[in-house]
This record gives sequence, structure tokens and C-alpha cells, in this order.
Amino acid sequence: MLTKALQEKIDTKTKPIGALGLLEKIAHQIGTIQNTLSPQLQKPTLIVFAGDHGIAAEGVSAYPSAVTYQMVLNFLSGGAAINVFCRQHGLELKIVDAGVQQDFPPHEQLLIAKVGYGTKSFLRDSAMTAAELEQALTQGRAIVQDTAADGCNVIGFGEMGIGNTSAAAMLMHYCTGIPVSKCIGKGTGLNAEQLAHKQARLEEACQFHGPLEDPKQILATFGGFEMAQMCGAMLEAYAQNMLILVDGFIASAVYLVATKLCPEIHTHALFCHQSDEQGHQHLLEYVGGAPILHLNMRLGEGTGCALAYPIIASAVAFLNDMASFQQAGVSDKQ
Amino acid sequence: MLTKALQEKIDTKTKPIGALGLLEKIAHQIGTIQNTLSPQLQKPTLIVFAGDHGIAAEGVSAYPSAVTYQMVLNFLSGGAAINVFCRQHGLELKIVDAGVQQDFPPHEQLLIAKVGYGTKSFLRDSAMTAAELEQALTQGRAIVQDTAADGCNVIGFGEMGIGNTSAAAMLMHYCTGIPVSKCIGKGTGLNAEQLAHKQARLEEACQFHGPLEDPKQILATFGGFEMAQMCGAMLEAYAQNMLILVDGFIASAVYLVATKLCPEIHTHALFCHQSDEQGHQHLLEYVGGAPILHLNMRLGEGTGCALAYPIIASAVAFLNDMASFQQAGVSDKQ
Repeated sequence: MLTKALQEKIDTKTKPIGALGLLEKIAHQIGTIQNTLSPQLQKPTLIVFAGDHGIAAEGVSAYPSAVTYQMVLNFLSGGAAINVFCRQHGLELKIVDAGVQQDFPPHEQLLIAKVGYGTKSFLRDSAMTAAELEQALTQGRAIVQDTAADGCNVIGFGEMGIGNTSAAAMLMHYCTGIPVSKCIGKGTGLNAEQLAHKQARLEEACQFHGPLEDPKQILATFGGFEMAQMCGAMLEAYAQNMLILVDGFIASAVYLVATKLCPEIHTHALFCHQSDEQGHQHLLEYVGGAPILHLNMRLGEGTGCALAYPIIASAVAFLNDMASFQQAGVSDKQ
Repeated sequence: MLTKALQEKIDTKTKPIGALGLLEKIAHQIGTIQNTLSPQLQKPTLIVFAGDHGIAAEGVSAYPSAVTYQMVLNFLSGGAAINVFCRQHGLELKIVDAGVQQDFPPHEQLLIAKVGYGTKSFLRDSAMTAAELEQALTQGRAIVQDTAADGCNVIGFGEMGIGNTSAAAMLMHYCTGIPVSKCIGKGTGLNAEQLAHKQARLEEACQFHGPLEDPKQILATFGGFEMAQMCGAMLEAYAQNMLILVDGFIASAVYLVATKLCPEIHTHALFCHQSDEQGHQHLLEYVGGAPILHLNMRLGEGTGCALAYPIIASAVAFLNDMASFQQAGVSDKQ
């Protein structure tokens, strides 16, 4: 009944049927999640999880691992892209140390939830233990529980972790069966030779670990602590009936694992931006996600979520604030 | 020198080179227009031109001409999509009666610049006279001069005019040589049979008028008063060194005529949204425009401009507010 009533409300706004395109689908989805004809977005929040990756020492990234720590300090001093976009578009920003190699001084925007000082290299080991994975999932859930308790009903997730496009490519490969060559990309800026090296390392890791099917085992084997916490956070956001904003390649790979653990989560997810990272397009096709933005970005941090947020808010605004044909006295089709 | 300095400022922000994709190009373009490393968007304004079309009586539109008048009243009472999006994203909205069939009561948001009570049908006549065209161009210029005098340096243009996808298709066909069948679309919602009728009427008009090459003559022959005023407005926006936000199919067809009169205008134009209207993709390819948004909308009114504005503002914000690698103490590539 609500489905039909929502569609009728959308269709009787003063515009041709369907003329607001993707905004109409977003409005319908949010109304359905909130079970109302007049949904509201409350306390939009972006959580950036940061963690280091053992695989980063294998020459798969253009930047050294130290950049993870430095960039978190940059987030805390307000100078990164995600700070600029969250300030501009009214999203609250929280940073989580999920597993950075160094320790941070206390800061009001920083949550310390360190699982460890970086993962192990998945070339010769599992990135984390099963116990570390459970700890990370639980911590991610707890952070979202607190955020929901503060009144937030729309949440996006970003990440910072040098080496995590390699980890994301492995999650994608193992969860979809798509060849490694189609799951990788230049990340933060590899050249062709470096990209070939990255592919060779990842295929070596596939040989070492052999076939894996359990989504948690895949996440523990290849994921970062920031990715495992994000996975728990996404699952909890669904449990809390929040709208979930999925960012670019890394976040989509984590979302993919979350769908394997909880297929219903797709009803609450919006795909914010199709990354320039090669693998992302294939990944979005696999999960059936129609991205809101195509801005050729490849930055992570949750920047796609922050930039898509005003458009999502516009979808809610038209549903609540536009006049109907009847209210405005406008003639319908002849 | 500025070009290089702008690129260097963009490249030394705390992100991989090129990682902000289209936002980097937008930031560079706006810096270039304003001749500064620290551009500012001031008093963003959206002007909606409204006018009626004689061709609307020929069965080419799903809605009757009366809707143009009714929708302008809807704009003035704040209930249309463009009202909602301008309020949300902080754009000032002005409505112009360029040539609606009926007269309006006075309203503070309404500018009366009526060239006539609708154009003639271009099936058997020129839509407007050469004198009417000149009047409309001059009025459009004057409106933008006033807006610039108020301190606005970024301006978008929308339109309302039942029948104007047909007029836009003719401008596109005559200015590009692309066949009529590729210039038309379902407009506000034609079915397949109605679309075939629309195509037949427009091809009949091509037969009647024969070949035309002068852009002003093309605009006078097929355009609406709202489109002619928008053309003058775009030309003046360029003259005033403003950033010009180009909306969907109709606005892009007007922009196309403006480029024929002033090819340099392309340096100041941003294409905000690729419309779901079939002809728009071909038109954008012709003018070399990379649209910011692809939301499958087909509404006009300037809605694409209003929805793209927060992203354009984000491009300026990252250029001004993000930290550089040096400022943040972040290591560059290894």
C-alpha cells in the first residue's frame, strides 16, 4: 500500500511522470525505508575508518604506509577533501583509528578502536585472525549504534588505508569470481609497470590461499581493519533502519561482503559515485547498483557520499515540498 | 602562467594527482575565468524564461499551452521543482515572462519582458520576426546586466514553454545538420505514435522553410521568445565574465545558437546535466560538453543547474580550503 501511495505522491507532483529520473527512485526508496510518505534525513553522518595494510610493503601502492597516519592527522586538522565537502554539505564527520601503524594524540573527532598496528601481508599470511575480524565487526557495529542513538538516520562510510585498493580487489575477486585483472586499477596513481606488478602480487596471493568461499574468511584473509569495521558498521546501519551511503571502490567491495552476510541490506543502500578505479564499474554491475554521480574521482575518504548528499536531500525535498497538479491548479496531460 | 599556477595548486592538494576528477577541471576553469588562484562564487542566480509556442497547437506536446501560464504561477507560489532545488542549494530565482499567452499579476520574483503572446507556428510561418528577435536578445542581455550589477558571477538559465522541445530540435537540426529523427525525443511524455507525429510535423517544417544558415535567422524561424531571451542572456553572461550554467536539452540548443554567434563562450560554460531527452546526448557531443550530472531527468526549468550547483561549489571549495601536502606534512609519492 505504501509503495503505491508513494508512487502516486511522486506522480502527481507538478512535472511530467518520471521527469525527475533517478531522484524519483531515491525518494521512493527513502520513503519505503522510513515507512512514510514524508521521509526526513536526520543528522547525516560520515564515518571514515583508517587502517594500515601489510600488503602495502609489497610495492602495490604509489604511496608509503606512513601516509595513512599523516592523512588521519590531516582529517583531524580539517584539511582533507572529505573535511571540505562535509563542512559544505552539512554532514557530521567522525574519524576512526581502526588499525593505523602509529598511535594518535586524543582528538574530539577521533574514535580509537584499534584492532592492531596494521594487518599482515596477505601474500604469505591471513591479513587478520578470525578473532581480530570479530572484534572489528563488533566495534564497527558499536560505533553505528552510538550514531543511531544520537538521532542519525542517514550514514555514509569512507576509508583511508594505503594499500586498500589491493585488499578491495581481492574481496571482489573472491566474492564474484571476476578475474583479478578486472578487479584492479591504478589506485592512487600507479603506472602501467607498477600495475602489472600489483596484478602479479595479487595473483600470487590467490595461489597461496587457494579457493575460499566463506565471506568472513575472505574478509579476514584479505581485508584491512578499517574494512572489517566498515562491514560491521554497514550491517548495523541496516539493523538500525538507516539509509546507507556507499562510496567508491573500497566501500563497494566492503558492501559486497556485507551483502553476502545479509542480502537484505540492498534495500537500504545508495551508490553515491562510480569511481574512476577500473574495477568499480564491474563491481557496481555485479551488485546492481546505479551510481548517483560519475565524476571520475578516485579518492575514497567518503568523498563520493559527501558530494552525492545534496542530491539525495533534493530527492527528499521534492517529495515533501513540491506542489501537486491539484494544489497548483496545473492541467494534467491532454 | 595562471594556467600553470592553478594546476600546481590543484596538484599539491592532499590527494593523488587527478583524484578529484571532474572537480579539478571545474576548479581550473573557474579560476581561469576569474583570473585568480582563489575564485569565489557570488550570488548564484537562476533565471527561468517562459514563453508559449505556436507549434504547441500542432499536436507535438503531451500538455496544452495553458500549462506554461499555470506553471509560471506555480513558480511564483514556490511549488515547482526549481523552487525546491533553488531554496535548498542557495540560488536566487527569477522568473521572466518572455512571451506567455496570458498576462500575470505583479509579483516580486517576476520580470515582465513580454515580446508577444506566444510565437507563431513554424509549420507555416516564422515563429517570430527579425525585430522581435532583436527585442528578445536585448531584453535577455538587460536582465543579465542587472543581475551582474547586483554582484552575481555565476548564472544558470531555465525555461518553461510547452512545445519547446520541438523548437529546440529544430535549432539543433539546423545548426548541426544532425537528422531531425535524432534531434527529437518524447519531451514531456509522448508515446511512440505521438513521437512519430512530432517527427512528421518537424520534417514538414524543414520542407517549408528550406535550408537556412544564419544563426539568428534559425533562432527567429523556430525559437520561442523564452529561448531568444535566454540566448541574449547567455551572450551577456559571457560579456560580463560570468560562469554560465547550461541546463538540459532546451538550454543546450540555445547555447548552441549562442556559440554560433560567439564561439568564445565555451570557455565560460559548464554543462550541468545530460537530459534523458534523446537528442541531448548528440547535442552535448557536438558542442563538446562533459555533463556534471546524469540523473535521467527531463524537466527543464533549470533543475539540472540547481542540482549541479553544490558540486560546482565543492570544486571551488577544495581549491580554496584543502591543505597542500606541505601544509599538512603528508608524504608525496614514493
